[in-house]
Amino acid sequence: MHGKNIIGGTLSAQGTTTCQSINPATGTTLPTRFFAATTEEVEQTMSLAANAFITYKQTSQDQRADFLEAIAEELLVLGDELVQQAAQESGLPQGRIEGERGRTVNQLRLFATLLREGSWCEAVIETAQPERTPVPKPDHRTMLRPLGPVVVFTASNFPLAFSTAGGDTASALAAGNPVVVKAHEAHLGTNELVSTAIINAAEKTNMPQGVFSSLNAQGYSVGEQLVKHPETKAVTFTGSTRGGQALMKIATERPVPIPVFAEMGSINPVLLLPEKLNLEVKEIAQTYAASITLGAGQFCTNPGLLIGLDSMELDLFTSELKEAIEDSTPQVMLTDGILKAYENGKETVLSSTGVSPIASSQQELPKGAGQPAIAMISGEDFINNTLAQEEVFGAFSLVIKCKNRLELKLVLHALKGQLTGTIMGTNEDVKIFENEIDILQEKVGRLIFNNVPTGVEVSHAMQHGGPFPAASDSRFTSVGTAAIKRFVRPICYQNCPESYLPEELKDANPLGIWRKVDGQMSKVSIVELVG
Amino acid sequence: MHGKNIIGGTLSAQGTTTCQSINPATGTTLPTRFFAATTEEVEQTMSLAANAFITYKQTSQDQRADFLEAIAEELLVLGDELVQQAAQESGLPQGRIEGERGRTVNQLRLFATLLREGSWCEAVIETAQPERTPVPKPDHRTMLRPLGPVVVFTASNFPLAFSTAGGDTASALAAGNPVVVKAHEAHLGTNELVSTAIINAAEKTNMPQGVFSSLNAQGYSVGEQLVKHPETKAVTFTGSTRGGQALMKIATERPVPIPVFAEMGSINPVLLLPEKLNLEVKEIAQTYAASITLGAGQFCTNPGLLIGLDSMELDLFTSELKEAIEDSTPQVMLTDGILKAYENGKETVLSSTGVSPIASSQQELPKGAGQPAIAMISGEDFINNTLAQEEVFGAFSLVIKCKNRLELKLVLHALKGQLTGTIMGTNEDVKIFENEIDILQEKVGRLIFNNVPTGVEVSHAMQHGGPFPAASDSRFTSVGTAAIKRFVRPICYQNCPESYLPEELKDANPLGIWRKVDGQMSKVSIVELVG
Repeated sequence: MHGKNIIGGTLSAQGTTTCQSINPATGTTLPTRFFAATTEEVEQTMSLAANAFITYKQTSQDQRADFLEAIAEELLVLGDELVQQAAQESGLPQGRIEGERGRTVNQLRLFATLLREGSWCEAVIETAQPERTPVPKPDHRTMLRPLGPVVVFTASNFPLAFSTAGGDTASALAAGNPVVVKAHEAHLGTNELVSTAIINAAEKTNMPQGVFSSLNAQGYSVGEQLVKHPETKAVTFTGSTRGGQALMKIATERPVPIPVFAEMGSINPVLLLPEKLNLEVKEIAQTYAASITLGAGQFCTNPGLLIGLDSMELDLFTSELKEAIEDSTPQVMLTDGILKAYENGKETVLSSTGVSPIASSQQELPKGAGQPAIAMISGEDFINNTLAQEEVFGAFSLVIKCKNRLELKLVLHALKGQLTGTIMGTNEDVKIFENEIDILQEKVGRLIFNNVPTGVEVSHAMQHGGPFPAASDSRFTSVGTAAIKRFVRPICYQNCPESYLPEELKDANPLGIWRKVDGQMSKVSIVELVG
Repeated sequence: MHGKNIIGGTLSAQGTTTCQSINPATGTTLPTRFFAATTEEVEQTMSLAANAFITYKQTSQDQRADFLEAIAEELLVLGDELVQQAAQESGLPQGRIEGERGRTVNQLRLFATLLREGSWCEAVIETAQPERTPVPKPDHRTMLRPLGPVVVFTASNFPLAFSTAGGDTASALAAGNPVVVKAHEAHLGTNELVSTAIINAAEKTNMPQGVFSSLNAQGYSVGEQLVKHPETKAVTFTGSTRGGQALMKIATERPVPIPVFAEMGSINPVLLLPEKLNLEVKEIAQTYAASITLGAGQFCTNPGLLIGLDSMELDLFTSELKEAIEDSTPQVMLTDGILKAYENGKETVLSSTGVSPIASSQQELPKGAGQPAIAMISGEDFINNTLAQEEVFGAFSLVIKCKNRLELKLVLHALKGQLTGTIMGTNEDVKIFENEIDILQEKVGRLIFNNVPTGVEVSHAMQHGGPFPAASDSRFTSVGTAAIKRFVRPICYQNCPESYLPEELKDANPLGIWRKVDGQMSKVSIVELVG
């Protein structure tokens, strides 16, 4: 470990401020001192990234696929060193880190597959009609092109899959944008290992200097300078609502505003419908206890609200859940700060109007661990209690008992934007409660039936985003291949000489991609079609 | 003419403030008094729109296509009355209004065609793999769904095609969103006629009350209230940079920020390359004189900058252009305010550092008309003169003379975001000046070769937008079928019962649309595919 900033292929430690990661399970400060980037280093990084963009945007989709696959390879080459480093810095078990490494590698490879297939760029061609009256129709060809350097603020809760070489970096690089990562202060060593792997991959696949950089920071000034920099064209962030909103404010107040894709807080409501609850009350309670406590509850999709109608089944569910939570094992949380925020947040909700505790884990509480807990509130109290809608990041959920369907509807109307909403219901329940489900649908990015929200598939169909404040822009996702759409814009080429057209738009369709030609989806060459 | 607000199917005039349109060619105030909406009327309108959304979003694509086609029919039924009203209020010739009506009607029909084909909603399906280890893969199905009520601020320069039933309204309605139009104060009568046509069409096709409303306003308060309203989910605007930025500020400062799609200023640079200029200097000068003065220069794509290398050809071009501009006929501008802003803006640029006048029209100047003019500036002066980059809305262009290629590059680097950039160049020119064209490409939404920027095709391939400040978000277009993408967001349905799935995502693919199923584009049913 060198602790330096990684500016393109160059190591740089011009400043004197240093920071260190802490092992949350032991409280021990880890030995390596990481040098926070100076104002000049940020400037050098962005200028190098802007320069890299000139050549990187001209790379073929195949070349970028090679690069992403090489990153996946280099991550695997790191072997156990990476797993141990990430486990040490995050408090997450090694098995979980190994699983997350698999997810990260597969994610990079999935984007490579997307590029090799090539159709994601939405090529649209309208051929010329020189004889059209009153005016001839020109030739128009449009495709999605990269925006320019993207600044990635990494997440604490997935030190691999949502961090340095995670979904944001993979999708921004796939689209043809250089990436500058602001390292997460909780896993600086993991960041250094992964950044080095990316640089190695870039060199092996002949990518331009500055296609990737990684800067360390203490406090907010490096992040602020990165977001304000004129060469920065987009920003991604995964974390708290406060953090995301602060970045959005800086970005919209720039002379040239840029998009911030912030994936922020979500309490992921679950609607427990009567027939289903009646049929499977024990299984549902056990499934949800597991989902609530999974990974110390440190998931953006952790189910924080369990909403049901006042009934014997709901009481039975609550008592089964109580037992399961009391038996659950407290787990070490990511950082001491996150643990404190969890315990404080829980306390705030528990002492707010109408909230009564149901249970908390009765098992031994190791150093650095959060104590799982659940509580109850009536529908009426929930509607009037703004504190109960704040995300408590960790293993904490509220059961909302609604006295009737009207109150249930009002609870659903009161919800803010969410990443997910879940329906536990039979087909009959779904039919009866269609209006309620419809209200919930308007609040979420992903509507789940008879499953748990934790577990976010990396696929073509994933939507990980949702109405504000779950995300800054509900029209985009931060997980799955559609995440690439955040970092591109359509450019239309009118009467463009064949020689200047990107491969994707050339007459012969050399990449063999799907294109919309004169309104029809097709893979054929224009010559064949028109001539 | 009743002058009332149109709130769903109800006419409403609760306020006492009235406003009137003015004929810009005569300065005459037109007789009808239009009632500005009150705070309560705005509230009623938005609440009705929110209510309409509940049913409107459930309409089929075919039903919405019927609605759009009925609007087109109703517009044609208005016949000459509409043409005369719009001509009177805008100062535009009847022939131009007739052409614009054709464009508006075709635009509505094109969106109807898009809906009948149905694939625009980007259905993506990943089928379940219950046997997958370590965790089963759920079924995920994603498609674009409407956002909710859209507020449309209409443009002055296209009283039909970018106004009440223009591209913004057509695309928002096509996507399944109710629309509330803030009538343009310059053509209140045209707005009333067109709004009535839309309401008639809504009634004939059984659309819900409140799917469309239109409010009159004096000053900014109605617009501000509309943008701040919690039921408003998106805003469109076409007009000045100042106006667009004011709306963006209000929208981002809301408790729940919403997107504003503002299409603002652009000066549409044209790069005159040497070989092309040498071959066709006269034709290019004449073509550009016509493009500069078309419609009194009142186009967002008016070519405001003509950039060339210091040469005999550029001097010849300038003298040809001079002659053509002197011969050009001044035309009545849209409003007295726009005329004054044009004359003041021209004066500001003409008296700024390094700008010298070349020519202005020597023809008779009718009442209300703007005097076309061109001027010259050196590349170096342009780079240092921020005033020269401000859009002068009207028939005014600057010729930029660059002393060498380095200066040309610096001029291109200095440009702000633009709707269009044009290259006048032979294939040889394009090869030689590839770097320069590449710089220009990063600044524009549409890159045009050997043509004029005026004339914006309504098609699947059009990109009418561009980097800020040309538009608020370069990732979207306000013209062409892709404009529909502004008003939708992906919703992912996980393990959703067939009965609750939208038609577009059902197993059997009843609409026969293109879907991405397990990574492959296909029109087949899932049953057939998966077995």
